[in-house]
Amino acid sequence: MPKRVDVDARRREIADALLRLAATEGLESVSLRHVAAEAGVSMGAVQHYFRTKDDMLRFALEHQARRREQRIVARLTAAGRPPTVREIIRTSLLEVLPTDDESRADWLVGIAFFIRAMRDPAMAEVLAEGVPQVVGFFTEQLGAAQADGLLAPGVDPYQEAVLLWSAVDSQATAIVLGERDPGDAVATVDYYLDRLFVI
Amino acid sequence: MPKRVDVDARRREIADALLRLAATEGLESVSLRHVAAEAGVSMGAVQHYFRTKDDMLRFALEHQARRREQRIVARLTAAGRPPTVREIIRTSLLEVLPTDDESRADWLVGIAFFIRAMRDPAMAEVLAEGVPQVVGFFTEQLGAAQADGLLAPGVDPYQEAVLLWSAVDSQATAIVLGERDPGDAVATVDYYLDRLFVI
Repeated sequence: MPKRVDVDARRREIADALLRLAATEGLESVSLRHVAAEAGVSMGAVQHYFRTKDDMLRFALEHQARRREQRIVARLTAAGRPPTVREIIRTSLLEVLPTDDESRADWLVGIAFFIRAMRDPAMAEVLAEGVPQVVGFFTEQLGAAQADGLLAPGVDPYQEAVLLWSAVDSQATAIVLGERDPGDAVATVDYYLDRLFVI
Repeated sequence: MPKRVDVDARRREIADALLRLAATEGLESVSLRHVAAEAGVSMGAVQHYFRTKDDMLRFALEHQARRREQRIVARLTAAGRPPTVREIIRTSLLEVLPTDDESRADWLVGIAFFIRAMRDPAMAEVLAEGVPQVVGFFTEQLGAAQADGLLAPGVDPYQEAVLLWSAVDSQATAIVLGERDPGDAVATVDYYLDRLFVI
């Protein structure tokens, strides 16, 4: 048991190093040697903890998703009462938008993986798993809100979930390119939630 | 006058060659030599028609935007009567989504320029001009539709313009990654237009 914990902790440390490099330099020029140096371990250690580079990349993506989920849960529980569906969805959306160093780094990592996926079908397959999970979660939450009479009449929870994801996906990239102000992006999300929720 | 026409035609031919290369190979490895070979002209000719590589890239982007605009206008005039605002906006949105070879190549070119912009602030500045133009056009059109009582009560034309752009921007990239079906993306756009327009 303690050994397993050590293994997981070491894999997370290496993944954190990879994510830092991906956010600052992209993935194109990142080698095992870079990751080992950034993590402060030997190349042999990296190879010990990850069988292949793809294995490491996939683990790093999952690790990043878990970290983001933990941040969302921490924000939602800080209120000290059960969050509403609207709060759950708004907090999730705002955590995706690059509004601080952490969410900005996360989005830059996403872009680095996207650029790799454009030339690497295996990576495209891994990336393709992410959005349907988010859309599925939003669809479920909106379905519950609809059953409670909280949504505007006649809306489709699945289509609304796709549109909510699109709103942050598109604006997040515009923010890191310097095209869009983060506060304006948040205002657009709130505008849309106001249209969607009647309460 | 004829000379000027020749210059423009030659610049467009070279730009078309650059756009073909950008769509298939990206921009990272594309050199003046590649562009000249693809266009069937000498490197000296390329340098004669464009002072710098940036000049060529900027012209190619503008050329692509004009081509897309012409396709949209051709579709809208095919009906033989003045298009409604809803038709203008729907046709513009659907032309952005990669639903055929031409629109798919266009979006791949956009991604190639985006990838370059991530490492090249001058290119990021050029790219940053595009979306506000589209959003401005949609805002104007929706404002007119609102004045005619065609929109759902209380909507904000500017925010709706941002959301419509986001819906195609995000889904277009998901389509070229193989994450989303083009028909599903069109259905989401139509769903949103149904929510936005009362007529």
